[in-house]
Amino acid sequence: MTLAESLAKQQRSISVAEFFEKNKHLLGFDSPTRGIITTIKEAVDNALDACEEAEVLPDIYIAIKKTGKDVFRIIVEDNGPGIVPENVPFVFGKLLYGSRFHQIRQSRGQQGIGISAAVLYAQLTTGVPTTVISRTGHDLPAYFFELMIKTEKNEPHIIKKEIIDWDRTHGTRVEIEFKSNLSAKRRLLDYLKYTAVVNPHARIQADIDGEMLTFERATNETVTPPQAIAPHPYGTEFGQLKRMASVSDETVFAFLTNGFSQVGKKSAQDILGIARIKETRKANRLKTKDLKALLEAMQSVHIPPPPASQCLSPIGEEMIVSGLDKEFQLDFVKAKTRKSQVFSGHPFIVEAAIGYGGKLDQEGSARLLRFANRVPLIYQQGACAITNAISEVNWRSYNLSQQGLPTGPILILVHVASTNVPFTSESKDAVAAISEIEREIVLALQDLGRELKTYISRRDRNKQDENRARAICSILPEIAAKVSEIVGKPVPDISPLEGQIMRRVICRKKTDNGMVKISVANYTAKPVTVMVYAVSADTAKDASVPPDFVDSIGEEFNKVWRCEVASQGTWEVTYTGTLGGSIDLRGVDEKMKVVVDVDI
Amino acid sequence: MTLAESLAKQQRSISVAEFFEKNKHLLGFDSPTRGIITTIKEAVDNALDACEEAEVLPDIYIAIKKTGKDVFRIIVEDNGPGIVPENVPFVFGKLLYGSRFHQIRQSRGQQGIGISAAVLYAQLTTGVPTTVISRTGHDLPAYFFELMIKTEKNEPHIIKKEIIDWDRTHGTRVEIEFKSNLSAKRRLLDYLKYTAVVNPHARIQADIDGEMLTFERATNETVTPPQAIAPHPYGTEFGQLKRMASVSDETVFAFLTNGFSQVGKKSAQDILGIARIKETRKANRLKTKDLKALLEAMQSVHIPPPPASQCLSPIGEEMIVSGLDKEFQLDFVKAKTRKSQVFSGHPFIVEAAIGYGGKLDQEGSARLLRFANRVPLIYQQGACAITNAISEVNWRSYNLSQQGLPTGPILILVHVASTNVPFTSESKDAVAAISEIEREIVLALQDLGRELKTYISRRDRNKQDENRARAICSILPEIAAKVSEIVGKPVPDISPLEGQIMRRVICRKKTDNGMVKISVANYTAKPVTVMVYAVSADTAKDASVPPDFVDSIGEEFNKVWRCEVASQGTWEVTYTGTLGGSIDLRGVDEKMKVVVDVDI
Repeated sequence: MTLAESLAKQQRSISVAEFFEKNKHLLGFDSPTRGIITTIKEAVDNALDACEEAEVLPDIYIAIKKTGKDVFRIIVEDNGPGIVPENVPFVFGKLLYGSRFHQIRQSRGQQGIGISAAVLYAQLTTGVPTTVISRTGHDLPAYFFELMIKTEKNEPHIIKKEIIDWDRTHGTRVEIEFKSNLSAKRRLLDYLKYTAVVNPHARIQADIDGEMLTFERATNETVTPPQAIAPHPYGTEFGQLKRMASVSDETVFAFLTNGFSQVGKKSAQDILGIARIKETRKANRLKTKDLKALLEAMQSVHIPPPPASQCLSPIGEEMIVSGLDKEFQLDFVKAKTRKSQVFSGHPFIVEAAIGYGGKLDQEGSARLLRFANRVPLIYQQGACAITNAISEVNWRSYNLSQQGLPTGPILILVHVASTNVPFTSESKDAVAAISEIEREIVLALQDLGRELKTYISRRDRNKQDENRARAICSILPEIAAKVSEIVGKPVPDISPLEGQIMRRVICRKKTDNGMVKISVANYTAKPVTVMVYAVSADTAKDASVPPDFVDSIGEEFNKVWRCEVASQGTWEVTYTGTLGGSIDLRGVDEKMKVVVDVDI
Repeated sequence: MTLAESLAKQQRSISVAEFFEKNKHLLGFDSPTRGIITTIKEAVDNALDACEEAEVLPDIYIAIKKTGKDVFRIIVEDNGPGIVPENVPFVFGKLLYGSRFHQIRQSRGQQGIGISAAVLYAQLTTGVPTTVISRTGHDLPAYFFELMIKTEKNEPHIIKKEIIDWDRTHGTRVEIEFKSNLSAKRRLLDYLKYTAVVNPHARIQADIDGEMLTFERATNETVTPPQAIAPHPYGTEFGQLKRMASVSDETVFAFLTNGFSQVGKKSAQDILGIARIKETRKANRLKTKDLKALLEAMQSVHIPPPPASQCLSPIGEEMIVSGLDKEFQLDFVKAKTRKSQVFSGHPFIVEAAIGYGGKLDQEGSARLLRFANRVPLIYQQGACAITNAISEVNWRSYNLSQQGLPTGPILILVHVASTNVPFTSESKDAVAAISEIEREIVLALQDLGRELKTYISRRDRNKQDENRARAICSILPEIAAKVSEIVGKPVPDISPLEGQIMRRVICRKKTDNGMVKISVANYTAKPVTVMVYAVSADTAKDASVPPDFVDSIGEEFNKVWRCEVASQGTWEVTYTGTLGGSIDLRGVDEKMKVVVDVDI
């Protein structure tokens, strides 16, 4: 026997389940810790995709229950359209099975691997079968399954299948049990929070081993699901064209106009003219030579880019801004949705946002929020084209310090939406380095960087103005004393002047000739609504503006006025009264108010 | 029809070829540029693995030929054992097919995807079938194939199969033609160079579109192929144990001792004792409960680590040092092969080397050379655990500057050898972040860093000494003049003193009383061999050391002595002669010599 013959005995085909069982880190199951997030992410992706297709408002329940030492049971239930019982075993018990792989449109799932990988991981680590309940309508029964995967064949193994009672009229529930631990809980919470931010139409409830969390719906509008489009001529490869042509029974003219995106009659005529192919020839009769000429012609004629608005679903600037602001209470936040672009024929849109100040950490690198097709990316930040593109921007020119990433109280969100997001691995943690995508991210961030620079300069200028004003105010008393000494008059009250210089709200009380006068002057740039509290023995029954509220405290009266004062405006009240008592102003920041009681 | 029913119509299974055609970037075909390197890498991996198994010295021919606009034909031919004709279509025309996937030992290929991915890429981009020639022995015919892949089925499509004449007695030749360009030529050359460095037993010839390159064999010793081992109990998962038990017809005792690595009779008894299972029970009759108890017991008993020396094949410190030194002519180079370790039951060894100075760039980040199972890793440096681990080392404590990576004229080589290298994707460009591996890399580099620090300190101290000596020498003449003035004597010749201080080689010629005396004094730390050239009218026939060579130049004679002088030693010759002529010393660096002619 030759060596080749003995080697031949060892050669055999490897099932895709065997491959991913051995290389489970490629699917995001490289550590027990990660397994939980990966599984929930895949199940929630499926739930959100299905609800979007059914145009129902998603109602998702997630539970993580410790069932033994280092063993957790993950439950995800949704109110989606459900899965027909014939397909349940394949959706959960076969890797590379799905509905979205062959469609050209934005969706969260795109590989047909996700949830079945979790089933595989469960049977590998605990041997516990996965249970699935699914129901496709109120007039149809709910089916219960116990499933595993035949690893050597990559086929589902149905252990139990039965009809059960279920309170949902439609939806799916999956329970998967594997070795894990909750040490990545912070990341899990981030994942849930960010998912809620970009899916404001979803209600998400989570029971994390007893700790209950609810992310309420922020809108009752369903998301219109992106529509699938045909392939675009510019992104078509020879092998793909050949395959499409071989299964077509149309003329080559109809094949072009029906089979490709954005190819109208005029374009088809131009293409066939250049390729020197008669319009009436059957597509499936074209020879290799003809197909090569056809492809070259298809890619030389001007054809509009793919209809991105139809097949893509960006989050939108408004929603990004409100989501971030709600979460981080930022001093500055702007978002930018770029126009759609194309890489290798796949349309994509980049969205980005920058947040500054607020609850962000003052120190350290920028906080990154990465999203792909509305799904938060949690792991492998360093390997991601998004991170790379952010580091490529010269942040110093926007007055930020930078060590690769910009540093300081800054947050950067980037969302890449595409009909085919190029991930660096099946675990979908990081976007691959595609230059077209990186370029769009850089352009979006440069736009936002300029706006941030304007904001920071203005803020710094304001601070400078304030410092200058403070300096002036600090010498005002001396000037006043000097001047009054020279002219031989008493020292004047300079507080309104200070208020004016410092751009503050001044409340003054002065008693003169048995009359009390309270005034509120607003030197800020915005109108204010404030409450004036005056406590004294005076009843103020004859007040020029009656108090909104009067309360007696022992022998004194607490008089309260609610007053709106325009920018640069003044509000006033007078009443009969005597010296004494106290005054206060509320409803305006402590640093912004000056209260002066000039009774002496 | 419910929505679930209409969705169900879109669900179908996806062949692994379809999956990787769409996600070709996962296999290293994300750009036309990369395709060439990926293809050559996969073919060369296979060739080297096969030659290793056959224990023949590899003789590999690579050609890259431009055959059209942006189309290249890649040819790789080896003298390995060949592939039996029945298996050729599967090896090249089916993804996930191979001999090394199920074996626990170090090999370059481990996935069964590599070369068939290139075949897939060729048919996608050019539609040109791949040709393969293979022969398995001198008494057997050579077979020629034209192959493609049926993408929807992931099965080979044989277009042509015939017997041909071929001048190799055994080996394989593959020709693959796809869209590409040569813009990554520098990386390709790096790949070839580094492959040669770690495979000194291979002859590699390359014809890069007309440019010929040969990497000659540096040794004629074949590499002993690593041997496959059984799985180790500590790395066994429940699902794997269950599967192994179900196909066993042995008793559970024999199952343990035969089926697992490092489990002897004593260990097996201990395991079964703890698990409370009788030794004579059949392995395939164990219940889930028994198997769980068995696994727990297997992982609680002390069992030696897997026999790494058998299944792993590190490069070795000596070979790494000589390979690097040959390539970069380094001032400092050290290598370290760590002891084997285990992650998730997979044995691995980390090797590392540091080079300094020589031909390395003075500026910029360290040059990294990453290897996994003797294969150079070319792409995705930023995403690799090796890069990560290097950045984690505190290089400042070894007197190097650092910006993530250390900077300066430094080179870092890291080799990870394992029975299962955890790559971040199928393209095998980067090692995944496994903490055990990162830790070993850090430890190896810390060791080497300390040695580098010692070297740099010594070098700096030498430089300091030299600066000090230079300062002394610069004032010596003044001291000499002053002293001679005071004592009223002529200024002495201070050059030997200078030579001594500066640690140099001094050659002096002095004529006194009709006698010429030439001396060579070696003040350096090492012995020197130098040539003394004395040109004058003297014949030197009575020289105390006869010249090694005498030549007449016109009226003068050139006398040459070859002399070896120990460190701190002196060599001398005297002969009858007169003033005049010239003297020179050769065989020592210009900066290191002082020639003094004190004839006046």
